[in-house]
Amino acid sequence: MATILNGKELAKKINQKTKEEVVALTNRGVKPGIAVILVGEDPASLMYTRSKQRKADKLGMTSVLKKFPMDASQSEVIEAIHELNVDDSINAILVQAPLPKQISQSEVTEAIAPQKDVDGFHPENLGRLYGNEASNYPVACTPKGIMRILKEYQIPTVGKRAVIVGRSILVGKPMAALLLNADATVTITTSHTTNLAKITSDADIIVSATGIGHLIKSDYIKPGATVIDVGIEQNSEGKLIGDVDYDDIFDKAGAITPVPGGVGPMTIATLMSQTVELAKWSH
Amino acid sequence: MATILNGKELAKKINQKTKEEVVALTNRGVKPGIAVILVGEDPASLMYTRSKQRKADKLGMTSVLKKFPMDASQSEVIEAIHELNVDDSINAILVQAPLPKQISQSEVTEAIAPQKDVDGFHPENLGRLYGNEASNYPVACTPKGIMRILKEYQIPTVGKRAVIVGRSILVGKPMAALLLNADATVTITTSHTTNLAKITSDADIIVSATGIGHLIKSDYIKPGATVIDVGIEQNSEGKLIGDVDYDDIFDKAGAITPVPGGVGPMTIATLMSQTVELAKWSH
Repeated sequence: MATILNGKELAKKINQKTKEEVVALTNRGVKPGIAVILVGEDPASLMYTRSKQRKADKLGMTSVLKKFPMDASQSEVIEAIHELNVDDSINAILVQAPLPKQISQSEVTEAIAPQKDVDGFHPENLGRLYGNEASNYPVACTPKGIMRILKEYQIPTVGKRAVIVGRSILVGKPMAALLLNADATVTITTSHTTNLAKITSDADIIVSATGIGHLIKSDYIKPGATVIDVGIEQNSEGKLIGDVDYDDIFDKAGAITPVPGGVGPMTIATLMSQTVELAKWSH
Repeated sequence: MATILNGKELAKKINQKTKEEVVALTNRGVKPGIAVILVGEDPASLMYTRSKQRKADKLGMTSVLKKFPMDASQSEVIEAIHELNVDDSINAILVQAPLPKQISQSEVTEAIAPQKDVDGFHPENLGRLYGNEASNYPVACTPKGIMRILKEYQIPTVGKRAVIVGRSILVGKPMAALLLNADATVTITTSHTTNLAKITSDADIIVSATGIGHLIKSDYIKPGATVIDVGIEQNSEGKLIGDVDYDDIFDKAGAITPVPGGVGPMTIATLMSQTVELAKWSH
């Protein structure tokens, strides 16, 4: 029977600490601020954006929403980023995905000042992470939150085999870098990988972030493995399910994150705590 | 019997092409230029630096050496870099490793303008590589040279398993990124990895860059594997040997780089051709 890695509970603890730090910083005249840029009216993006704003408000931070119509030009969006880059009340800037076709994700990302890039997607921050630099820089929130879960539950990484299923810039690549920096032996798989089950069966830690519902079943894991589920997909019955077939692996795994209540709440808690870190580093 | 991956021959072809491109660029008034910064009197570093300069001269490029005494301060070195950053006759800047203790490798690397960072070590360039960006940016020369060897010998990467032994910023990390970008399933091992032979035995492509002489023996590889040897070490008899026990694996491997004459000549050929690319991109 697997230990359930309760991301929801851990997120509450982190949010409580963030709240206290926001009070302390605000008393010193440095109220942390986050700006979200949203282009278009995608309902899911609107929902995510609102929930980030609500959380920031609840924790006592400044939160700003810059909303653009679906047909906004890239230069308009980049101009808004340039204004936020020099706005002292804003410590963290994030651009809600997805962007419409006329706007280049990479050009928008590179326009964000690296020291305000709370998503950690700027090449300078990704490069520092991959190069394992000792200085302070932001790191993608989902993988950073996963590392906190591993630490909280004292799951060892040194010399352990980790397999990352999926190589996105949001999750897979920064996750691989963090686990490598934590001295794990890391494998990154792609959609071209053959015999995935054999590869994941060698892993002490599996992080799956493909969005393919119930991809990881019990024959994909070795007994006692830690299984982290970053996927989320709506199945044919309209139910949200993860990459991992939770019920199927529950008896075989050593530890597992539930969906919901696992990685999700940790991502937003990390977004908020990293905004506070950016505010501290800037002063 | 393994195919011998003749880096020396391929490097000759690349150098010939570089030479022609240098002539063409020089005729257009853009003579490519490379600057090497050397701190101290380490004999090996002196030898490497001289061989780079000789090669640059031979190919018709401008080459500049900035030499500092062993006790030079970090700010002196960074000042020289700042001057080279704005010098239009210089397209490529590299700092010869190792640096003395009083100088921070990462601060010196970050001082180099990313568009002149011919070693590809600047976090912005490493991040672009790891993020698989489509724009033009320099990439570490040894792994870039290895990708050219794989291409020349039509060794497939898509869906293949690659194992990188060693996680340096010079070789292991950029190598992993390049192979991942070429759709391989990539594993990076570290000095903490246990049961290395089992892991490398799963690989279609092994790149070893540890400096541990004859680490990779025939029980470390599967039949037909491609084995790339980046290591170089002086054994007790004073002979230079690679990470790979060439004679031991020769009958089992599918393809193998010799030491010397494999990866080494490709690194310097790539350094030169990348200097030409930087010159082109800047104009």
